[in-house]
Amino acid sequence: MKTSVTVLGLGAMGTALARAFLAAGHPTTIWNRTPGRSAELDDLGARRTEDITEAVTSAQLVIVCLLDYAGVSEALHPAAAALDGRVLVNLTNGTPAQARSTAEWARQHGSQYVDGGIMAVPSMIGGPAAFVLYSGSASAFEQHEAALATLGRATYLGSDPGLAPLHDIALLSGMYGMFAGALQAYALIGSEKVSPNAFTADLLVPWLTAMLTSLPRMAADLEYGAEPGAAGSNLAMQAAGFVNLIQAAEDQGVSAALLRPVQRLLESAVAAGLGDQDLSALVPRLATEVTRVG
Amino acid sequence: MKTSVTVLGLGAMGTALARAFLAAGHPTTIWNRTPGRSAELDDLGARRTEDITEAVTSAQLVIVCLLDYAGVSEALHPAAAALDGRVLVNLTNGTPAQARSTAEWARQHGSQYVDGGIMAVPSMIGGPAAFVLYSGSASAFEQHEAALATLGRATYLGSDPGLAPLHDIALLSGMYGMFAGALQAYALIGSEKVSPNAFTADLLVPWLTAMLTSLPRMAADLEYGAEPGAAGSNLAMQAAGFVNLIQAAEDQGVSAALLRPVQRLLESAVAAGLGDQDLSALVPRLATEVTRVG
Repeated sequence: MKTSVTVLGLGAMGTALARAFLAAGHPTTIWNRTPGRSAELDDLGARRTEDITEAVTSAQLVIVCLLDYAGVSEALHPAAAALDGRVLVNLTNGTPAQARSTAEWARQHGSQYVDGGIMAVPSMIGGPAAFVLYSGSASAFEQHEAALATLGRATYLGSDPGLAPLHDIALLSGMYGMFAGALQAYALIGSEKVSPNAFTADLLVPWLTAMLTSLPRMAADLEYGAEPGAAGSNLAMQAAGFVNLIQAAEDQGVSAALLRPVQRLLESAVAAGLGDQDLSALVPRLATEVTRVG
Repeated sequence: MKTSVTVLGLGAMGTALARAFLAAGHPTTIWNRTPGRSAELDDLGARRTEDITEAVTSAQLVIVCLLDYAGVSEALHPAAAALDGRVLVNLTNGTPAQARSTAEWARQHGSQYVDGGIMAVPSMIGGPAAFVLYSGSASAFEQHEAALATLGRATYLGSDPGLAPLHDIALLSGMYGMFAGALQAYALIGSEKVSPNAFTADLLVPWLTAMLTSLPRMAADLEYGAEPGAAGSNLAMQAAGFVNLIQAAEDQGVSAALLRPVQRLLESAVAAGLGDQDLSALVPRLATEVTRVG
């Protein structure tokens, strides 16, 4: 028997979630703060309500996907009394602190709370490349794991509800770093009218793919402690070479703004006597040296 | 018959280059500003000289690998008269402008000049993963392509000697972006004592590998023009979500310094009316909006 589901929020992502549940045969109730955004989902057999309490009490599994946590509070507050005994899975984008605070509020109202981070754009939902990170109530996750797997590969990270958004934000931070590097690369080659297609296929993607293989080593250094300089290019050498990345950008009429905090981080580490260390030595400095690299 | 080679500069990289030439059977002369750093190379059969003019005139192919371009000028100036008719391949780290200026100086002294960017750490030289970018004199490159391939896969980018360092620096900028993103990710998960090894193997590397597949699309947008919003997450949505990346870092006691210029770039693009565009729309803004994102 299929799990009945309610989806709160029908933006691009909420609509994609509801569509995936309906396609998999789950009886699905939909609710949105402003009505009338769900013609496509009506056609797929969604049951629509404008009453938040009815929405929350209509299903075994309540999925929340709103713009932000302020919207979550606003939407759920009128239905607080109805949350008792319900499973709430909140896939709204937010921070670990917001997830923990919402989990505590939900717990006080008798709800089993799971927070989630969706690692996909709406068009990927229900497809093979989508994955969703979950944390919070283990029993609620286990109970609904099969239904949640409808959306994408489901990974449970632990009972602290902040873990899913923490991992989500760590992965997005990694992605934006990579994209920022790519933007800088495109701006540099663009300054000389080099073809972005050829540069990407022949050089950038193979190069970054090769450089990705150094992350497990960096992780091992962080996990077990590093052997200084073993990677063949220590921080002092990297800081010396980094000057060219800034100078070349400026010479070519490209902003070096995306690179400058990396340079400051490298140089502050060298100034602190870590010149013989590898990149992994920069991680603890991010955690403690906020003002120095800011 | 093997090409005779001279290597000027015996730092870690210069030593690795000389070692690779010697291993491949090229008669190799070595020179270093400060003598006595080449015991290992002596054992491999290197011919050592302390006379820069003798070093330059000893071989068909002169490889330069010094600390910086100031060192290149200093080393070659006393031997300028001996450069006439020689092929000079300069693998010293530098900027496009430095390469062009050195090429012009070499040309005035009758030398055929090739500039190069080594995409490897010293331990990779001569191995399957090393590649070297070249630009400058096409005839000099073609004449010595086989010998240069000893060091790593040799790619010729065009007659402008600045192209090799431009591509080198673009690729390094891409790499440092990716590493900066990874450092931020490690600092975030480290704030909650999550295992770096498991995070890297299970999430970070698969995620970044998946996100790398969006670069060819970004390149095509740059090459042919973009269809706004086709990628499913436009700049306005990304700028809204980015707030969580900054807030979560601050909540977790992690510096957001590496991310701030990315946020400023996103927000300035949205403020300029590009909210419905994709990431590729940020590239021209890096080339022109130096003060706005700096």
